[in-house]
Amino acid sequence: MPAVIPADSVGLVTPQTVHVDTPLTLECKRVLPAYDLVYETYGVLNDVRDNAVLICHALSGHHHAAGYHSMDDSKPGWWDECIGPGKVIDTNKFFVVALNNLGGCHGSTGPASINPENGHNWGPDFPLVTVKDWVQVQARLADHLDIEQWAAVVGGSLGGMQVLQWSVDYPERLRNAVVIASAPKLSAQNIAFNEVARQSILTDPDFYGGRFYQHDTYPRRGLILARMVGHITYLSDEAMKQKFGRDLRSGQFMYGFDVEFQVESYLRHQGETFSRNFDANTYLLMTKALDYFDPAREYDNDLAKTLARAKCRFLVVSFTTDWRFSPERSREIVNALIHEGKDVCYAEIDAPQGHDSFLLSIPRYVDVFGSYMKHIKVGNTHAS
Amino acid sequence: MPAVIPADSVGLVTPQTVHVDTPLTLECKRVLPAYDLVYETYGVLNDVRDNAVLICHALSGHHHAAGYHSMDDSKPGWWDECIGPGKVIDTNKFFVVALNNLGGCHGSTGPASINPENGHNWGPDFPLVTVKDWVQVQARLADHLDIEQWAAVVGGSLGGMQVLQWSVDYPERLRNAVVIASAPKLSAQNIAFNEVARQSILTDPDFYGGRFYQHDTYPRRGLILARMVGHITYLSDEAMKQKFGRDLRSGQFMYGFDVEFQVESYLRHQGETFSRNFDANTYLLMTKALDYFDPAREYDNDLAKTLARAKCRFLVVSFTTDWRFSPERSREIVNALIHEGKDVCYAEIDAPQGHDSFLLSIPRYVDVFGSYMKHIKVGNTHAS
Repeated sequence: MPAVIPADSVGLVTPQTVHVDTPLTLECKRVLPAYDLVYETYGVLNDVRDNAVLICHALSGHHHAAGYHSMDDSKPGWWDECIGPGKVIDTNKFFVVALNNLGGCHGSTGPASINPENGHNWGPDFPLVTVKDWVQVQARLADHLDIEQWAAVVGGSLGGMQVLQWSVDYPERLRNAVVIASAPKLSAQNIAFNEVARQSILTDPDFYGGRFYQHDTYPRRGLILARMVGHITYLSDEAMKQKFGRDLRSGQFMYGFDVEFQVESYLRHQGETFSRNFDANTYLLMTKALDYFDPAREYDNDLAKTLARAKCRFLVVSFTTDWRFSPERSREIVNALIHEGKDVCYAEIDAPQGHDSFLLSIPRYVDVFGSYMKHIKVGNTHAS
Repeated sequence: MPAVIPADSVGLVTPQTVHVDTPLTLECKRVLPAYDLVYETYGVLNDVRDNAVLICHALSGHHHAAGYHSMDDSKPGWWDECIGPGKVIDTNKFFVVALNNLGGCHGSTGPASINPENGHNWGPDFPLVTVKDWVQVQARLADHLDIEQWAAVVGGSLGGMQVLQWSVDYPERLRNAVVIASAPKLSAQNIAFNEVARQSILTDPDFYGGRFYQHDTYPRRGLILARMVGHITYLSDEAMKQKFGRDLRSGQFMYGFDVEFQVESYLRHQGETFSRNFDANTYLLMTKALDYFDPAREYDNDLAKTLARAKCRFLVVSFTTDWRFSPERSREIVNALIHEGKDVCYAEIDAPQGHDSFLLSIPRYVDVFGSYMKHIKVGNTHAS
């Protein structure tokens, strides 16, 4: 717990919920009559309402991006390294909005929510939502907050995909797009890893076809495996080597199947913790949203033609040892933007930590990202 | 089925079994009083018995490395691309020996075998054997065949590790060591992938703590997952892209969890097929043998000092897109050998297929490997 909240923290924050009852037509053609969105805001919206920044979260993220919910919290929000007074996304300047995406499991309507039609958890009946759907929903949240145009939409990994989709679907509604450690679509290998994660969950006998809520259980083993395999792809080989090497827990081989190497212990712990806090149906839905993401599909499979619609400036950032979404994938985005004469900055950050780098305060990353955010012009009158 | 057996095939082959009743003390200190080894041979041992080549298999391999068991076989042995008359490992010149390692599930004594002490399958009571143990057993097979010295010991991946161990443990008993797509020890990332595979099996309710034989079932789901995750690491990102890309089975998104992308279909098929033909306890044992392999551990963690014991010539081969055991890992071996002034050839083959390259007839690979094998001197009198 934070005995004292650090000076550069946004401090204690309280999630808010908006109930949207305008029916939402999803890409899969199904219609959701109403839904809740949980979100947090940090900083103050200025009089001209032009200093709002939207944070789009990745697979396991949510609305709690910065600060603390109570003095008992042992950890701040997931992107606290980057969001706060004087930080990269400076809450003295920006009004930051972070939400839990539709289909999530942290307060927004999702598979674990009650389906009003039958009083049961939605489970597998919850529609598969896509990145495009999320962006549509985020635009509804912007409407609710009376934000006509975001100063920036920002996200890493799956979050970066939402940023790209914003620039294409609502070109007038953002001035800057910050796309970090992302890709214009998944590779076959990316899909393959997702499929392993899905099969882990789907074949767990405790999954009950997604209706585990009624059986008062959850697919713990499947979620652990899914997270373990995911986690391997978040770290670089080098980062794992530095963190664990081939260190043995007991110093000698045990010739059995209990934990022997530190890396096994770490992975099992990550999996265990995750399985207790994440809904299996949401996990499945998130991996499908990743697989489906391919904005160029609507534009003759031509990424340049797709991004030609964008009107904002772009910052694209990648990390050298990220093998989940390698720098090459970011360069595909950058090259398409350059082809269309768009205003784009690109930084490839030399970092050993792999995909997870985007969550960390790596000096060069902080410099590049911070400098970009500093140059975003916003009206200087604050709401009282 | 081969309507006609190809001219460059070793033809129809019959496995042989040797029962060894000299007690075997394993690295884990346990003693196996007796065991069976199944093996095949191709070609003819010459009068001076100096033309024998030992093939060491990888994780899912076995003794059936070349030729056909019957005219009904749809496929030849697993390394038929490289073993046969006029092929890289030329059976007109060499007497080739391939065995199923101890702990395997294709005929040699392993966890699925009956433990004579109680009449049940060994299951989890079968000792965890190591690469060093395998090499000791292979030396017993050489004794049985009256082969004092191998012209070459050859292997890819986990097989290459056995080759390295041969050069260290029995320096007088081989003249050439061919180490392909291998590593001097696993990285933390390699161990992490193995751990996911193990947990898939260990947590499958049908595993029954390894005693699934008595329950007349097997951990099908766990084996499928283990193979799926393994298979991803055998192929390069590039190979997957070329093979499947983002091709959809039906041409459109289905918004469900049935197979949509071709790569999912491929992986599930690989997993299904494998699960029907492989023993789960053997899979666990094999992954542990991989994790434990670290010959330098006996020699102050100094690989050069370890390989200083070797007296044979070496051919080390790696493949550019192999990310399971990258060229960098082969270079560690080569550098240690050079440091000790050993006779070593090294080839890094430019190939898009990833780790699985070692099983394929890639022209440059065939040239390098074939040329090396051609230069091995053997007596030219054949046994009648």
